[in-house]
Amino acid sequence: MRTIEVGILGGTGMVGQHFIRFLQGHPWFKLTWLGASDRSAGKKLRDATDWRLDGDMPASAADITVSDSKPGSAPRLVFSAMDASVATEIEREFAQAGHVILSNSRNHRMEPDVPLIVPEVNPDHLSVARNQQNRGWKGVIVTNPNCSTIVLTMALAPLKQFGIERVIAATMQAVSGAGYPGVASMDIVANVIPFIGSEEEKMQQETQKILGGLANGGFAPLQARVSAHCNRVPVVDGHTVTTSVEFASKPSPGDVRHAIETFRAVPQERKLPSAPCRPVVYMSQKDRPQPRRDAAREKGMAVFVGRVRECPVLDIKFVACGHNTIRGAAGAAVLNAELMVSEGLLD
Amino acid sequence: MRTIEVGILGGTGMVGQHFIRFLQGHPWFKLTWLGASDRSAGKKLRDATDWRLDGDMPASAADITVSDSKPGSAPRLVFSAMDASVATEIEREFAQAGHVILSNSRNHRMEPDVPLIVPEVNPDHLSVARNQQNRGWKGVIVTNPNCSTIVLTMALAPLKQFGIERVIAATMQAVSGAGYPGVASMDIVANVIPFIGSEEEKMQQETQKILGGLANGGFAPLQARVSAHCNRVPVVDGHTVTTSVEFASKPSPGDVRHAIETFRAVPQERKLPSAPCRPVVYMSQKDRPQPRRDAAREKGMAVFVGRVRECPVLDIKFVACGHNTIRGAAGAAVLNAELMVSEGLLD
Amino acid sequence: MRTIEVGILGGTGMVGQHFIRFLQGHPWFKLTWLGASDRSAGKKLRDATDWRLDGDMPASAADITVSDSKPGSAPRLVFSAMDASVATEIEREFAQAGHVILSNSRNHRMEPDVPLIVPEVNPDHLSVARNQQNRGWKGVIVTNPNCSTIVLTMALAPLKQFGIERVIAATMQAVSGAGYPGVASMDIVANVIPFIGSEEEKMQQETQKILGGLANGGFAPLQARVSAHCNRVPVVDGHTVTTSVEFASKPSPGDVRHAIETFRAVPQERKLPSAPCRPVVYMSQKDRPQPRRDAAREKGMAVFVGRVRECPVLDIKFVACGHNTIRGAAGAAVLNAELMVSEGLLD
Amino acid sequence: MRTIEVGILGGTGMVGQHFIRFLQGHPWFKLTWLGASDRSAGKKLRDATDWRLDGDMPASAADITVSDSKPGSAPRLVFSAMDASVATEIEREFAQAGHVILSNSRNHRMEPDVPLIVPEVNPDHLSVARNQQNRGWKGVIVTNPNCSTIVLTMALAPLKQFGIERVIAATMQAVSGAGYPGVASMDIVANVIPFIGSEEEKMQQETQKILGGLANGGFAPLQARVSAHCNRVPVVDGHTVTTSVEFASKPSPGDVRHAIETFRAVPQERKLPSAPCRPVVYMSQKDRPQPRRDAAREKGMAVFVGRVRECPVLDIKFVACGHNTIRGAAGAAVLNAELMVSEGLLD
Repeated sequence: MRTIEVGILGGTGMVGQHFIRFLQGHPWFKLTWLGASDRSAGKKLRDATDWRLDGDMPASAADITVSDSKPGSAPRLVFSAMDASVATEIEREFAQAGHVILSNSRNHRMEPDVPLIVPEVNPDHLSVARNQQNRGWKGVIVTNPNCSTIVLTMALAPLKQFGIERVIAATMQAVSGAGYPGVASMDIVANVIPFIGSEEEKMQQETQKILGGLANGGFAPLQARVSAHCNRVPVVDGHTVTTSVEFASKPSPGDVRHAIETFRAVPQERKLPSAPCRPVVYMSQKDRPQPRRDAAREKGMAVFVGRVRECPVLDIKFVACGHNTIRGAAGAAVLNAELMVSEGLLD
Repeated sequence: MRTIEVGILGGTGMVGQHFIRFLQGHPWFKLTWLGASDRSAGKKLRDATDWRLDGDMPASAADITVSDSKPGSAPRLVFSAMDASVATEIEREFAQAGHVILSNSRNHRMEPDVPLIVPEVNPDHLSVARNQQNRGWKGVIVTNPNCSTIVLTMALAPLKQFGIERVIAATMQAVSGAGYPGVASMDIVANVIPFIGSEEEKMQQETQKILGGLANGGFAPLQARVSAHCNRVPVVDGHTVTTSVEFASKPSPGDVRHAIETFRAVPQERKLPSAPCRPVVYMSQKDRPQPRRDAAREKGMAVFVGRVRECPVLDIKFVACGHNTIRGAAGAAVLNAELMVSEGLLD
Repeated sequence: MRTIEVGILGGTGMVGQHFIRFLQGHPWFKLTWLGASDRSAGKKLRDATDWRLDGDMPASAADITVSDSKPGSAPRLVFSAMDASVATEIEREFAQAGHVILSNSRNHRMEPDVPLIVPEVNPDHLSVARNQQNRGWKGVIVTNPNCSTIVLTMALAPLKQFGIERVIAATMQAVSGAGYPGVASMDIVANVIPFIGSEEEKMQQETQKILGGLANGGFAPLQARVSAHCNRVPVVDGHTVTTSVEFASKPSPGDVRHAIETFRAVPQERKLPSAPCRPVVYMSQKDRPQPRRDAAREKGMAVFVGRVRECPVLDIKFVACGHNTIRGAAGAAVLNAELMVSEGLLD
Repeated sequence: MRTIEVGILGGTGMVGQHFIRFLQGHPWFKLTWLGASDRSAGKKLRDATDWRLDGDMPASAADITVSDSKPGSAPRLVFSAMDASVATEIEREFAQAGHVILSNSRNHRMEPDVPLIVPEVNPDHLSVARNQQNRGWKGVIVTNPNCSTIVLTMALAPLKQFGIERVIAATMQAVSGAGYPGVASMDIVANVIPFIGSEEEKMQQETQKILGGLANGGFAPLQARVSAHCNRVPVVDGHTVTTSVEFASKPSPGDVRHAIETFRAVPQERKLPSAPCRPVVYMSQKDRPQPRRDAAREKGMAVFVGRVRECPVLDIKFVACGHNTIRGAAGAAVLNAELMVSEGLLD
């Protein structure tokens, strides 16, 4: 397979750095372009930003000269790691000019012609992207969900067969989910912050769209009711979600565990490079999954579920955990791109 | 009012130290007796244990000579801070010998003749204690709930009027709730542990008993369904509980806030020394309450509630927070003792 | 004694909030004025800023209307909690106009006519302030040291008698020392940052000035050599300093402990309202002092020292700990003001 | 090269688990034997202990049946991860029976015929092991240093050429250094503990032995004076050491940096499998190294140094950081074994 050149919009920010790291050594994609604000344009990446992640800035990226955020010089496939405050117009401009934008920003996720994809859950939603031609775009925008949504929807994916009717989820989210500088240490050291702006609304709406189907050439959101309580905790990486679910078909805890353990989906069948062998890993220990010990396993691309048991109020309860900056951000967008490649959409 | 001498069973342990600290300067109660294992008996407290709490061991307690855990020399009113592994027999022995045992241990909480009291919620349950005479006891055992239960039941107390039908609660619990040495730092630094042994069962059952009524001279548990997800987080003091509730009478968020803000109960009416002015404090800031910033306010005796809003699945959701070792343990038992004094039960 | 009205420059910032809290209920000083940037001026404090400290904004301060940072309306005695980026000119303007500025900012600390005072260590340095008349100022600027310096100099104060010659100090500093938002949680959760900008230079120079004497109407810095290693650790409040010291007179560890335990100074003799009974508290436990357990004791105004022992390289080593935002900032400036009142300098 | 079978004494404990993980996929060594207490003997590892590290217990180890701690069935090369409380007699018994014991325990480190080896620093010390024949042993015990000592001695190794005369080091040590359950979370969450039992003595003595030479067929400790301040901080993995050093030849900071950057030693020359390319990595960023971001780089086998600068008291100061359970424990012992293999000592 030939190598595909890719770029990153917002390449100097924290999310951009996660993309840079995740793309290192990718078998299909080669990072050749970074777009950022005018302030950084023209500088080598090494001079344009400090590296905030573990280890050193990857040498191959460090020498890329940052471009301004204009479509001209960018490769066709561009990941967007831009702040929501600026993403709307720039992503549209790129799509109009013919680029395939894999966006991690929230801006276009809920639009009726923009797929919000988790490849293990709703790969068929990609087809709706063609409606973007009606905007006069030569390219397309495809989005991945919020970092908490992805943990929840991955955990629920194997359970769709039981008829999901109601979901109550409480999150304990890592500080890396807030970017950099993000959460002030004075707010979170030895503390819990029981609020994350807009997060609950995103989890509630995005989950319905992702778990939903297609109708009349558009999206048909799942008619389940979803309620989220979102909390920040002093954890570095990994979002944990305790979840209670009501099902139409009243599965037993054993049915649920079996469904999780046997779940495989399109990315596994096609052996996409970033797909985990098991998208949802069931852990039988009584006190797992845990974010510090589990989120980074399977290269951070799986979601871990444990403690499946009966819920006295709804039917089943469990805990899920996933890596918010990998499976919940950069890895999610890259896996979406791999899915599109495997569909021939980037030929 | 005359001073009442009190003792502490389990006086050398972590919970015992919380009792010692809480009783410092109490206007009614004077600590004169400490019971512990044979290993400590005969030593001054200062030589029998290390002080694990902030500051120094209170001087007045440091000079008390620790007794063995036998009823002989103890005052009539004794707080029990014993480990559950030993509490059952010793507490019974003291009750049989005529002592009034205010126990923080879980052992007797769910027995049909033992009151499980939160003075703001179910002071009338005290009357059932007289049934313990049928055991041939001259004294009595009265218990306070688990540290998570108390936060939840205090938050729900003002809302009983709306007809509580279903509750789903997810906790984020401080490490001090596990005693000493308790949680290993290797397990909890920058991590979440989504499991606390027996905690969910305790929250579910105790809540029903406390919020319930009386019938036929015994307890009539609330027929609401309660589901708990219990998690440990790296916080020192203060348990946080996100809660979704279904009500019979469908109150609005405004109704709920009003009920919380105007809630006062027996301890406030009687101005019991350890009673907070407002038992449940509503916080209107969007990101409160928080355990590190709020749990210790009002001398750690109030429960703080915020973010009352509609729940898409049940009716109302909110977050509650309280101090687990004060309102959730030592302060709870002392307030129970004050309630009993105010009822004339210790005359 | 009559009440003295006081103001705070930088009253809406994090350090300003520490001043507001510390001044609550002060027996001599009544807070009546808050100065801040034009953006806040004209608003009530409650509308001008969020309260970042534990508990609620004190009600008496919440209703003060914030002024702009001009001398006109301010009382004579003004505490400065301003950012170093703006403090220089504004503090000078206030001093010129006749105000007594007790500044926590670093800007004027090392100037040859500005006292850098720790009342227990160098109260005699106040006399040099009169040289500021040569600037044409009707008022005066008096400063307190950096939050790390004050822990070190308080711990060394009782040991000056032994002839301090060389000091190597390594700090472990709380996140509250960096203000708000200060240190990003991504940088410090479960981590150490072995660098704090300009902190080592400040500790080295300020210590020499404070421990020095007077000569020719000016300051004569101590000729000791001081080396600091400054580190940030995930602690909320309280700076810990491990220290090795070389002395001229070679005291034994017992001599050092005795000197610490018997040390009393001017603030104690005059019973200044914010002075701790014992300015330096020796702790004999093998693993104390600790910031979370000890820094806030004695109302946060004492410094705690433990583990005095022989140093194989210099002569004596020990660990010191103090509350960085109280004794190291707001409380330090207020105690300086109390010292000036007791000297009749504010009559 | 043929595969060498190896065993682990103390294989079920926390340190043993670090050995198991480190040995996974080792090109020379194959783990075939685990020794533990009678309580575990006869069980498969998966049934004998809980896995405390990230991820799952390695499958190849999980099926090993644990033996009791007797020499009979063990392979010749055995790593000792035993608690100091039991290591002395058992290690001697194994050495007497002909085993080569690579011990991480402190028990034999300071004995006059037991090498205390850091392969990059004092590989020549191995020769002294032959003196153990005088004990009537057919085998031999070789030790690696304490986890703090190894960070300090690795950082100092390139600087021996300048004549090390005096060293003052202050550590900030991760909780993983205390094993499991180790430090209670109540003691360390948002806190510093300025004391670790025996740690300062170990750092002081072991450093002198390791940096020393040989004389008369035995060890000739370095005559430098070393003083350590040891502190525990809430970090998971990675010990940080701030260090001031006095040198005979007064190198400049540039000389020191150059010495570090060009330092290579025997493990690098021989390309031992666990040897890092650069044993000591100099970081030029102003705020590095940091334990969470750097300790695990280079597979946790390098030591990272930054902030080399002049010390106003001694000559040079810097900060060093290394992974305490890899380079400071399991990896250290395995590298010692590789060194012995490369010397032909295991043929």
